[in-house]
Amino acid sequence: MSVVVVGSVAYDGVETPHGRVERMLGGACTYIALASSYFARTKIVAVVGDDFAAEDEQLLSNHGIDLEGLERVPGKTFFWAGVYSDDMNDRTTLRTDLNVFAGFDPKLPASYRESPYLVLGNIQPSLQRSVRAQMNGLRLAGGDTMNYWIKDHRQELLETIREWDFLLINDAEARMLSDAYNLKRAAAKILEMGPHTLVIKRGEYGAILFHRDWHFIVPGYLLEEVFDPTGAGDCFAGGFIGYLAEKGFDLKQGHIDAKELSRAVIYGSVMGSFCCEKFGVERFRTLTRAEIDARFQEFRAFTEF
Amino acid sequence: MSVVVVGSVAYDGVETPHGRVERMLGGACTYIALASSYFARTKIVAVVGDDFAAEDEQLLSNHGIDLEGLERVPGKTFFWAGVYSDDMNDRTTLRTDLNVFAGFDPKLPASYRESPYLVLGNIQPSLQRSVRAQMNGLRLAGGDTMNYWIKDHRQELLETIREWDFLLINDAEARMLSDAYNLKRAAAKILEMGPHTLVIKRGEYGAILFHRDWHFIVPGYLLEEVFDPTGAGDCFAGGFIGYLAEKGFDLKQGHIDAKELSRAVIYGSVMGSFCCEKFGVERFRTLTRAEIDARFQEFRAFTEF
Repeated sequence: MSVVVVGSVAYDGVETPHGRVERMLGGACTYIALASSYFARTKIVAVVGDDFAAEDEQLLSNHGIDLEGLERVPGKTFFWAGVYSDDMNDRTTLRTDLNVFAGFDPKLPASYRESPYLVLGNIQPSLQRSVRAQMNGLRLAGGDTMNYWIKDHRQELLETIREWDFLLINDAEARMLSDAYNLKRAAAKILEMGPHTLVIKRGEYGAILFHRDWHFIVPGYLLEEVFDPTGAGDCFAGGFIGYLAEKGFDLKQGHIDAKELSRAVIYGSVMGSFCCEKFGVERFRTLTRAEIDARFQEFRAFTEF
Repeated sequence: MSVVVVGSVAYDGVETPHGRVERMLGGACTYIALASSYFARTKIVAVVGDDFAAEDEQLLSNHGIDLEGLERVPGKTFFWAGVYSDDMNDRTTLRTDLNVFAGFDPKLPASYRESPYLVLGNIQPSLQRSVRAQMNGLRLAGGDTMNYWIKDHRQELLETIREWDFLLINDAEARMLSDAYNLKRAAAKILEMGPHTLVIKRGEYGAILFHRDWHFIVPGYLLEEVFDPTGAGDCFAGGFIGYLAEKGFDLKQGHIDAKELSRAVIYGSVMGSFCCEKFGVERFRTLTRAEIDARFQEFRAFTEF
């Protein structure tokens, strides 16, 4: 079953201890959609400028991604540049040029509105809300946010996530949103804000899924070389929703399949780990579903006892 | 089968965001032995002063710990005081009075020498080495160390761990010892130094066991309240060796049971998590084996998919 992904399609400039790329395809929507495309038909809603390269569009369509909702407007595509610390646990933003993204007003093509799965990348909460309102018959909807919206647009954000099934954020964001340092307490507070499922991403340390009275924890995959962590969290979201869409997961029927949700967390982790192996979206040029499933089995091998 | 534990028995002054204790029973040997005692007959080698309280000795003997190797000499017991940061991920040492520990020259009672399992708490590497040399027929020997020995006594440390089966250290120590930031690379370098098994402790993020061509990762247990992390790493070591001793684990026979080693990592994690629930050794006054086994099952529940 199909997945709709809304968010930024961008160009990124990235510097890590392994090198530097001046300009490459990026953006939350791009990463989520590429990861999700390995599991389910994926449709994107985003805006790009007239500088958006044909080869970048080609990469997306090569993955079977539906581009009907990719709006092209005069001007430049969103540009972000950042540099990572030596241990890659911190990054500093060097430049954010919103460009055509400043006027982004996501409109869903009619052919998208019946999709059962929706992921809202990190954009203004009111826009996330307007997208959700355009969908019919959703089985599972949720998304990401960031410190800026949590701090300066709290009310708008709370009204938005109240309608979500799942929220995927990192540990710092969970602490900020809940005003609790302890993650178990933070999760309990966030689960009262609306979403029944909370996934807290912990970077190299993995992720935790909280669902009312149970939780599932996966450690991070050990890579020998992390080339570029940009997009890893978004790829996590793409793998997570993609797997659930492939399985036709349906929370609305009252039965929560904890093991399927847990496996979705593993597929999210798998996609995030592949993302870090090369700069930007490079790894997705060659990645196969067989490699993905093999790494899923690796997770089993190094966590089972 | 029995376990010999060598290290410090001390008094600690600890301040965490949850409170402050001026003076309480502590020391690596104490924590390792208490944790190990739930699984196997445990014998300690340590030195205390004439201020060592009868009630503290009682706690150890209540756990069936063999105190024949606990030397009592005139003077004061080792005293350490420290304060934890708000998030408890850092701690600052306020005071270290070695006292009688400065002259510690561990001598094993004859009744200890045939024990098949040995854990060497963090003390001077040459002392660790001399203890190992006093043992006969060891099935499994290893221990802990710290930044001070890695940096300033490197050669002595390398000669010591060369004879060990396992090394249990934290991530910062593994990076320092190997001069590699990436943990997979760090582990590969350390496994060439002698130990066939390396456990890297990651505090709240859990632990990784590396063994030549495979590894096992466990995430940390989510506590709602971490009262005092002092001794958690030592309790990990005690649970790890205790479980293996209980099972009669024998690496010398050539067959490595990866699942048993992995389960030992879980029992280590279980003991470390209990340790954090109260100040100092308090939790061990009431902890039962049934609670330990129940938490082991919890680990299964939140990691299985």
